[in-house]
Amino acid sequence: MELVYKGKTKDVYKLEDGFYSLQFKDDVTGTDGVFDPGANTVGLSIEGAGLACLRMTSYFYSKLNEQGVPTHFVAANVLEKTMKVRKATVFGNGLEVICRFKAVGSFLRRYGAYATEGQDLPAFVEVTLKDDERNDPPISEDGLAMLGILTHEEYAVLKQRTIEISQFVQAELAKKGLELYDIKLEFGRDAKTNEIILIDEISGGNMRAYKDGQYIEPLKLEQILLAD
Amino acid sequence: MELVYKGKTKDVYKLEDGFYSLQFKDDVTGTDGVFDPGANTVGLSIEGAGLACLRMTSYFYSKLNEQGVPTHFVAANVLEKTMKVRKATVFGNGLEVICRFKAVGSFLRRYGAYATEGQDLPAFVEVTLKDDERNDPPISEDGLAMLGILTHEEYAVLKQRTIEISQFVQAELAKKGLELYDIKLEFGRDAKTNEIILIDEISGGNMRAYKDGQYIEPLKLEQILLAD
Repeated sequence: MELVYKGKTKDVYKLEDGFYSLQFKDDVTGTDGVFDPGANTVGLSIEGAGLACLRMTSYFYSKLNEQGVPTHFVAANVLEKTMKVRKATVFGNGLEVICRFKAVGSFLRRYGAYATEGQDLPAFVEVTLKDDERNDPPISEDGLAMLGILTHEEYAVLKQRTIEISQFVQAELAKKGLELYDIKLEFGRDAKTNEIILIDEISGGNMRAYKDGQYIEPLKLEQILLAD
Repeated sequence: MELVYKGKTKDVYKLEDGFYSLQFKDDVTGTDGVFDPGANTVGLSIEGAGLACLRMTSYFYSKLNEQGVPTHFVAANVLEKTMKVRKATVFGNGLEVICRFKAVGSFLRRYGAYATEGQDLPAFVEVTLKDDERNDPPISEDGLAMLGILTHEEYAVLKQRTIEISQFVQAELAKKGLELYDIKLEFGRDAKTNEIILIDEISGGNMRAYKDGQYIEPLKLEQILLAD
């Protein structure tokens, strides 16, 4: 196993059979020792965070694969806290695709003149560049096409898959009495088929969820979702 | 004449015949006493700035009207430094539409990982909300449609007109050996016909122009363009 990338919350290894292995860590992103899923720095380490993230990701990704929504997920190993995935290449240096069901966070900071806090949004999709140095700037479909990151045809697929996946997660959360406000996804091109597939993870840290009007912390959210 | 709006660089009066009059002032936007067309505060007053702005705007708008590109321009009065315009309503609280021919400024600050300084861009169009409090945030076509600011059909017209007008200005500047890097336009709906028309102004402060690789200050640019 060859270490190919050391990430903030996961390390990536290349396997001998051509697949890759994601090693989930207990490190979580945050600022000044406070857990903040949107932060670009590792803030602290929480025992069990890596395992909870892996369990939630494998739960969603295996269900999505069953439904014919392509993901990079192959198998999970809970004991080793690893996930076996297909090889995929990211768009440019990587994109974050956000789907919003409620007006909160950076959406409200930008568009507060036209929206009220907590207002319903119709699975609104936005894309940002993964670029810590430039604070993950938002980018339009035209911008992505012009800079050669994504064609208009690929953008249409990305947007449609984002809505489908986000609405699926929303429905899964609703079964537990949870309300999904927004979620952040990552996509790539399958190295073999070139198909656009869901990569990375779906965990508590990738979404904002509320229960009875109260924000649910990522680890608590994972506990609620994975409870029988 | 009834004063209906006091702007940073222009005041707006309602005329008795249903048209409006823009009174150009010598105030220019800036920060700490330095002229900065992108700033949201009035920085200083420069004698002749209002007249230069009016002359350049009436030059461009009358030419555009002749070519069948609709603008709010009716007539200019150089002695009174006023411009008579059609009544128009803005989209939401107003939009700024930027057309870029070179990668500089905020484009480069956001997308510097994918573009080099001064790189050619193919008349790339971006929209920002006019919102001083929220630093004029960029917004996508989908965002504009979702927030009820502009339909997809109107966006297509806005984008096409922006490219046409910007390329016309680019060609006019080129006649004087000037290179247009980017330009900021404003549009509205004609109050009578509901047609999308160019409003506000086209002056040195709305664009970045270079000559032999040197940035040309707005007032200097207006002098060069309006010289016989």
